[in-house]
Amino acid sequence: MKILLIGASGTIGKRIYEAMSPKHEIVKASRTGGDVSVDITSASSIEDMYKGVENIDAVICAAGPVAFAPFDKITEEDFYVGIRGKLMGQVNLVRIGQKYINDNGSFTLTTGILVDEPIVGSTAGTMVNGGINSFVLAASQELARGIRINVVCPTEVEDSVGEFGDSFAGFTPASMERVVNGYIRSVEGKITGRVIKIY
Amino acid sequence: MKILLIGASGTIGKRIYEAMSPKHEIVKASRTGGDVSVDITSASSIEDMYKGVENIDAVICAAGPVAFAPFDKITEEDFYVGIRGKLMGQVNLVRIGQKYINDNGSFTLTTGILVDEPIVGSTAGTMVNGGINSFVLAASQELARGIRINVVCPTEVEDSVGEFGDSFAGFTPASMERVVNGYIRSVEGKITGRVIKIY
Repeated sequence: MKILLIGASGTIGKRIYEAMSPKHEIVKASRTGGDVSVDITSASSIEDMYKGVENIDAVICAAGPVAFAPFDKITEEDFYVGIRGKLMGQVNLVRIGQKYINDNGSFTLTTGILVDEPIVGSTAGTMVNGGINSFVLAASQELARGIRINVVCPTEVEDSVGEFGDSFAGFTPASMERVVNGYIRSVEGKITGRVIKIY
Repeated sequence: MKILLIGASGTIGKRIYEAMSPKHEIVKASRTGGDVSVDITSASSIEDMYKGVENIDAVICAAGPVAFAPFDKITEEDFYVGIRGKLMGQVNLVRIGQKYINDNGSFTLTTGILVDEPIVGSTAGTMVNGGINSFVLAASQELARGIRINVVCPTEVEDSVGEFGDSFAGFTPASMERVVNGYIRSVEGKITGRVIKIY
């Protein structure tokens, strides 16, 4: 398959590339330094990316900015960082990409455990994750031409342990292999409309 | 209790008022024609509303615009109607209201069954509902001074049967009494962080 991987240089994206590139042709998309560049907070940048990559069988998004702040201090703009990024960035990848992706193609998005197990400071992140998990369910029944959509929703991942201090105290990290397997299951399987929880 | 009811002139808001006004002092807020006016798509309008109403024990929001459109036609702006309205409108009611509401006060928001049972055209509405349901879980653990938060998530309500054509074919409408009881349970009970499903 030809797979467009957005967020290819990130913690999870790098591992997806390692695991899937022996078997598939992967086009790496990042803000900077990939095979193609994309700013997922911009619908026109997403449209330009799709115009530049032909014959896509699968889109994987492992990118999406979101802001953390305690709820008594958080600003409206903090929420909009996640809304423009992880929420509408991923929605627009699907909304625009449905015109470009091959028949029977698939979209695989990313959220995370904060949707079910919020931590202090995660009100915006939890909200955005909940929005995407629900969006995937709704979009799955409207996508045409056999196109599928799922979202991988991991707990803290092994490669980012320590990165967030004690915020994830008591969370059991998932191995990168288990996390990457969620994406493989979505891309190579036939499931659709699913939140693939890795926890 | 003194209750600030946003969306007091709407289908559900009117019934909340009827059921709760014999026992509570209710301040009706609407875009036009309430005791106080508010545009929940504007954070400054929300701040002005709170400045004009003192001593609030409970905030109920039964308002929130959202756009419907088939997924192959939906625009980014269609999504933002719901983001500015039902999503950030309700988030801002809590984010700003946490400074104004009394100790042990409560916020009760509104979503709906489309979060679990999407219909054609509901990708934006389903997304927004999912965002709010998750936000409530996260905010519940950060609100101080004993302040609680829940969301009532009804199926199609009896008073709006027929309003949406055949979109809700096969959905069993909930009586207005059952729906209103969800709000009463949130306001008069002690639960927090709950999605109160009326279906």
